[in-house]
Amino acid sequence: MKVSMTQSRHGFTDGILPEACASRAVLDHVTSKWGVLVLVALSEQTLRWGELRRVVEGVSEKMLAQTLRTLEADGFVLRLAHPVIPPRVEYSLTSRGRDLAQRLLPLMDWIADNADSILEGHSAAR
Amino acid sequence: MKVSMTQSRHGFTDGILPEACASRAVLDHVTSKWGVLVLVALSEQTLRWGELRRVVEGVSEKMLAQTLRTLEADGFVLRLAHPVIPPRVEYSLTSRGRDLAQRLLPLMDWIADNADSILEGHSAAR
Repeated sequence: MKVSMTQSRHGFTDGILPEACASRAVLDHVTSKWGVLVLVALSEQTLRWGELRRVVEGVSEKMLAQTLRTLEADGFVLRLAHPVIPPRVEYSLTSRGRDLAQRLLPLMDWIADNADSILEGHSAAR
Repeated sequence: MKVSMTQSRHGFTDGILPEACASRAVLDHVTSKWGVLVLVALSEQTLRWGELRRVVEGVSEKMLAQTLRTLEADGFVLRLAHPVIPPRVEYSLTSRGRDLAQRLLPLMDWIADNADSILEGHSAAR
């Protein structure tokens, strides 16, 4: 049996997302432990640093900073520093970030709806 | 500003997927480095171990085994061992796995379509 994804409608040639290809890198950013949660949080509203720290429960200062930097570099997140005293920095989704969130939210909704029964299966199988 | 996601249509209470909640665990499985790629690979066709190793380029034996075990325990993947000689073991998506893949594929398609321009932005910004 020949496995070829070359004609796949998912745009993957030479198998699923070859190691060296750009989509693998972007996939890693988007599905990183904290990337998903930050994107979902910002899909609801613009948030300040401290608000993100609260909403994305469990994220460390270091990981939040790193996640935001990656999402900013990818053009998903906009960092807006207001020239006021005390300083106010707000994070929001760019137009590209909203495009992404639109594809991410149905997945997150499905997970939220099904997680309990999925993990119940674990205990049942043990 | 009060940040409350309690009324969110995404089913998240107390912020985005509280640390202790089931959806966070399932999210980690589904968006694990290899979990996504295995799910996408199996969404196209039933595959044998060696085929999965080839298609999910870069995965080690150990990580593939671990990923398949988790996805099987979550009820996404079905492992079918045919009683033949030589042994033949096939992996496919369960009905729940297909439900999940249906939400995952639009995201993967979008990433595949946009990855190049996303990473080009990186170099442009440097």
